[in-house]
Amino acid sequence: MNNFEFCVPCDILFGEGQEEHLPEKLKAYGNKILLTYGGGSIKKTGLYDKLKALLHDFEIFELGGIEPNPRVERVNDGAKLCREKGIDMILAVGGGSTIDCSKAIAAATFYEGDAWDLLTGIGQITKALPIAVVLTIAATGSEMDCAAVISNMQTNEKLLMGHPALLPKISVLNPENTFSVPAYQTASGSADMMSHIMESYFDTVDAFVPDAISEGLMRAVIKYTPIALADPEDYEARAQLMWTSSLALNGLLETGKSFMWSCHYIEHELSAYYDITHGAGLAAITPKWMRYILSDKTLDKFCDFAVNVWGITSSEDKFKLANKGIDATEDFFRRIGLPATLKEFGIDDSRFEQMAKKAVAIGHLEGAYVPLNEEDVVKILKMCLA
Amino acid sequence: MNNFEFCVPCDILFGEGQEEHLPEKLKAYGNKILLTYGGGSIKKTGLYDKLKALLHDFEIFELGGIEPNPRVERVNDGAKLCREKGIDMILAVGGGSTIDCSKAIAAATFYEGDAWDLLTGIGQITKALPIAVVLTIAATGSEMDCAAVISNMQTNEKLLMGHPALLPKISVLNPENTFSVPAYQTASGSADMMSHIMESYFDTVDAFVPDAISEGLMRAVIKYTPIALADPEDYEARAQLMWTSSLALNGLLETGKSFMWSCHYIEHELSAYYDITHGAGLAAITPKWMRYILSDKTLDKFCDFAVNVWGITSSEDKFKLANKGIDATEDFFRRIGLPATLKEFGIDDSRFEQMAKKAVAIGHLEGAYVPLNEEDVVKILKMCLA
Repeated sequence: MNNFEFCVPCDILFGEGQEEHLPEKLKAYGNKILLTYGGGSIKKTGLYDKLKALLHDFEIFELGGIEPNPRVERVNDGAKLCREKGIDMILAVGGGSTIDCSKAIAAATFYEGDAWDLLTGIGQITKALPIAVVLTIAATGSEMDCAAVISNMQTNEKLLMGHPALLPKISVLNPENTFSVPAYQTASGSADMMSHIMESYFDTVDAFVPDAISEGLMRAVIKYTPIALADPEDYEARAQLMWTSSLALNGLLETGKSFMWSCHYIEHELSAYYDITHGAGLAAITPKWMRYILSDKTLDKFCDFAVNVWGITSSEDKFKLANKGIDATEDFFRRIGLPATLKEFGIDDSRFEQMAKKAVAIGHLEGAYVPLNEEDVVKILKMCLA
Repeated sequence: MNNFEFCVPCDILFGEGQEEHLPEKLKAYGNKILLTYGGGSIKKTGLYDKLKALLHDFEIFELGGIEPNPRVERVNDGAKLCREKGIDMILAVGGGSTIDCSKAIAAATFYEGDAWDLLTGIGQITKALPIAVVLTIAATGSEMDCAAVISNMQTNEKLLMGHPALLPKISVLNPENTFSVPAYQTASGSADMMSHIMESYFDTVDAFVPDAISEGLMRAVIKYTPIALADPEDYEARAQLMWTSSLALNGLLETGKSFMWSCHYIEHELSAYYDITHGAGLAAITPKWMRYILSDKTLDKFCDFAVNVWGITSSEDKFKLANKGIDATEDFFRRIGLPATLKEFGIDDSRFEQMAKKAVAIGHLEGAYVPLNEEDVVKILKMCLA
């Protein structure tokens, strides 16, 4: 077990009706709120009206229409607005894209130059506006972490920024707010969670406590995703998925581990070039990555995975057992309706070398669970084609 | 799953050498530290000298000799000292007793009357001095929670106080600081953790995510306690136990559940009257409590417990399976060297009615997982005799 620091001062308000606590909680931060949201589904569901009514005592400015894989242009616009209007806090109502964009705006408000500098490292995050969240999809875990992923479609880059000031002060997790999430997005969210958990589970450092928790959270995703797909208003299923999304990425599963990821960096290249849904891309890549890295060295971990996550009873041959676990993973993603190949996204191999080069460089994949070079990543991507 | 609020702004510094970060972290809170500790084992291990050297820039006052099951008299003394010397923060170096006593002092410093009022509810906790912890035994979880248990031997009462201000700001969890914990205390600590986990696992509300995490943490205790007993300097075993102790009681396992406990309230009466080691008392009570409450209604949960925690392969008869899980629990406590009966503590049935009455009243046991009245508690205590 490695040394670690773990501190997550985010106030989680979980359950139906928890939005009602927002006025009291938010008034500690001031009066001027920037309300951020995505494509407007919150207007259809009534959540927008509900929040506006609840927050009638605050002065509210709005930034709607935040797109999936949020763009740096939007961040610059938002930061300018925050400075001009003297915004006190940001209330992000949505999923990972809205929250990540809001985090980047919160930091960019205190940065004079192009917000993209905060992603490339040219500029430094020094502080950020306080952020509150009303989560509307269980997926990225951004509601309880310190990171944001922002895209620059001009340079085909999708980069990560992280800073303790980006941790939301308050996150309202009301499972009812995810009842309206369509099947494909629900499934993609689950694939994203599964991948977050697997990124820390398959790690150069084994640590019993976080790994046992990871196994439990993966079983939660496996159990409740089909239930939520069959009945989108099943409160218990939506609740277990929502809490899993937050716990999957708040640092708990990384305690004592190396924090070196693999699949996310490969997928980030796919969505940077092709703008596909992040979780769906992960579902296509992950099982192929598993097959590629299965070896004598990783065998025991994959056997644990097969037995403790998928409940496969041990077979005589360890490789058979490990492969059954990978089969189960692949079947699960297909069963919940996600594409199993890149062909289904209309992606061919024309940019694989380019993407592999960037994934290895940005993700430091030579230090991953199983070290990957550009050639390895190209091979994995080719396995994903069909 | 019930609604819940979860917010744990405690900065965990985990691993060898983490004490070195204390000077930098503590200076945010001022200059005058009250250093609290127990019987002086920290002087034998060298931890006392190490901390004094590290904190040479601070003005340090001391309150040593804090006894197990800390007494209210000590709390009053400490609070008086804090007021007189204008203490800025408390650094508790020890286990649950030292930390709980320090928490109570931190709150009592801002209360004019007898500190016992804060336990009985006559007085209210309004604020507390900041508390930092260097943990020296994995057991109570007090290093990452908001509660403290204080004893009053004159009234034979052992009561709980809780307030967000009692959450330590910083907790240093260096597994090496537990290498010197004797076998009996190590085992008692593990029994305490197991009980904390079981108190929330066996609950009127089932919730997949916290319950799956609970199962993982119980498996950690079961796996690593014998290893730590066999080799007290096994870093990995001490590390897994230490992190488990904190996660077992920081609120995570209670998320969405009812937070109604049983065995702890019964055991508190034992240690209030007989001053026995808390974890050891729990080890004697818990399996008997399990046998007493096993019924058609609780059967499925006990089967989950047998299969998911103890790895018992399902038998045809569910009651047989459930009992095998309880047997395994009993065997485990015996195997790690803890008394299986109250006789071994020299406790007879002379005060059972009195204790049962208080346990039911203080613990609101009529609202527990399986409701218990005074008669039930007396029966359970009698089962524990031999």
